[in-house]
Amino acid sequence: MEASSAPVPPSPEARPRRSGYRRLPVQQRREQLIAVALELFASRPPDEVSLDDVAEAAGASRPLVYRYFAGGKQQLYEAALRTAAQELTSRFTVPLAGSPTEQLSSVLESYFAFVAEHDAGYSALLRGGSVVETQRTSAIVDDVRRAALKRTLRHLGVREAGPRLTLLVRSWIAVVEGTSLSWLDEGRALPVGELREWLVDQFMAMAAATALHDPQTARVLSALLALEGPDAPRAARLREVLTG
Amino acid sequence: MEASSAPVPPSPEARPRRSGYRRLPVQQRREQLIAVALELFASRPPDEVSLDDVAEAAGASRPLVYRYFAGGKQQLYEAALRTAAQELTSRFTVPLAGSPTEQLSSVLESYFAFVAEHDAGYSALLRGGSVVETQRTSAIVDDVRRAALKRTLRHLGVREAGPRLTLLVRSWIAVVEGTSLSWLDEGRALPVGELREWLVDQFMAMAAATALHDPQTARVLSALLALEGPDAPRAARLREVLTG
Repeated sequence: MEASSAPVPPSPEARPRRSGYRRLPVQQRREQLIAVALELFASRPPDEVSLDDVAEAAGASRPLVYRYFAGGKQQLYEAALRTAAQELTSRFTVPLAGSPTEQLSSVLESYFAFVAEHDAGYSALLRGGSVVETQRTSAIVDDVRRAALKRTLRHLGVREAGPRLTLLVRSWIAVVEGTSLSWLDEGRALPVGELREWLVDQFMAMAAATALHDPQTARVLSALLALEGPDAPRAARLREVLTG
Repeated sequence: MEASSAPVPPSPEARPRRSGYRRLPVQQRREQLIAVALELFASRPPDEVSLDDVAEAAGASRPLVYRYFAGGKQQLYEAALRTAAQELTSRFTVPLAGSPTEQLSSVLESYFAFVAEHDAGYSALLRGGSVVETQRTSAIVDDVRRAALKRTLRHLGVREAGPRLTLLVRSWIAVVEGTSLSWLDEGRALPVGELREWLVDQFMAMAAATALHDPQTARVLSALLALEGPDAPRAARLREVLTG
């Protein structure tokens, strides 16, 4: 929705109630409101953040916020979510240097940094049951998951993934998501570096289990192990622990 | 669901408006309404099922449904969800015979049967964004996940699970859930028997990756491998594929 299509209540930006809010250009004001909303949604579950809270934190009036977000809190929440989703997706970039598992670990580092920044909002969104959750917000989250799937497959050098390889990557992404939620739930008690290494090991192990059922995954895993170098120490340790 | 509780139009029950509905004892009527609602919620997303649909399918009047569920569709949905949750939880029973992986496979068989029966409702619920989803419905789903965690840990012979072992089992449960959703999404294209075997292999592999980071999981895995018999063929195949 465009700000211009919103109904125009007593133009508070032009005629401020008190001695005047700072006047900002339209796009800048919109971005400021979204940034302020994101900060509030990160510190409290969305159900506990009101439009007035956003207005107050932004140093703006309630009507001004409505001028930009005629749909009120729900629209503001969705705009904030879209901004957060874009930011998260941009973090999926894989560094050029390093072995595949080092690269994976680096992407996980950005991911956990994002989770730490968006804390309460991230948690409430993925946990479900919030009043601001709609089919639209679910679709935004699904888009992020799809982007993560696409990037991971590209990183693995796969052009067209069959259903089993797709299931593997989707499952691993679900494990990453669940792990980050558990991490927040338990007050970040587990060291994030250890979780990252655990998730990389999970990827390797889950790929191995999938390779037993799927030639495409077997080829991907074998290429990955070759790139890990002659020892592939993670694989060696997994083999050892599976000896019982 | 009992055959006797299914709506049977045309029948004495289905001569509404004229000679009156069949009179059922309170508890039986309540159960019948829930059973009918469950069937409807299984075949269509909850947002597309109305209270009138339930009344009609139950051969009951709208006011009668409201007499049992004053909160309307939302309350009926939650009651149906609670019934489904109980039924699912009761399926987590592990058979006494067989190796640990055979037992796991058998529990997964009941789980997938449940998913197949509740199809659209299961999918809509876990996907999120439905209007009937509230903090209460999320709590019911979380209870089922907690029950699954508890049963799995008990099955592994664990009394007090540390954070890493808990994370492993929770992650595996998330993978089972995501896999069942993908299975439905793709029109059940992948053979369910293969998915079940894949999930058992995933458990073994994920436990191995966790054992690298956690002595408790290492002990559990080692006990599991011992029970699998001298060859533990699944572990052997995993080792092989990890050799690259």
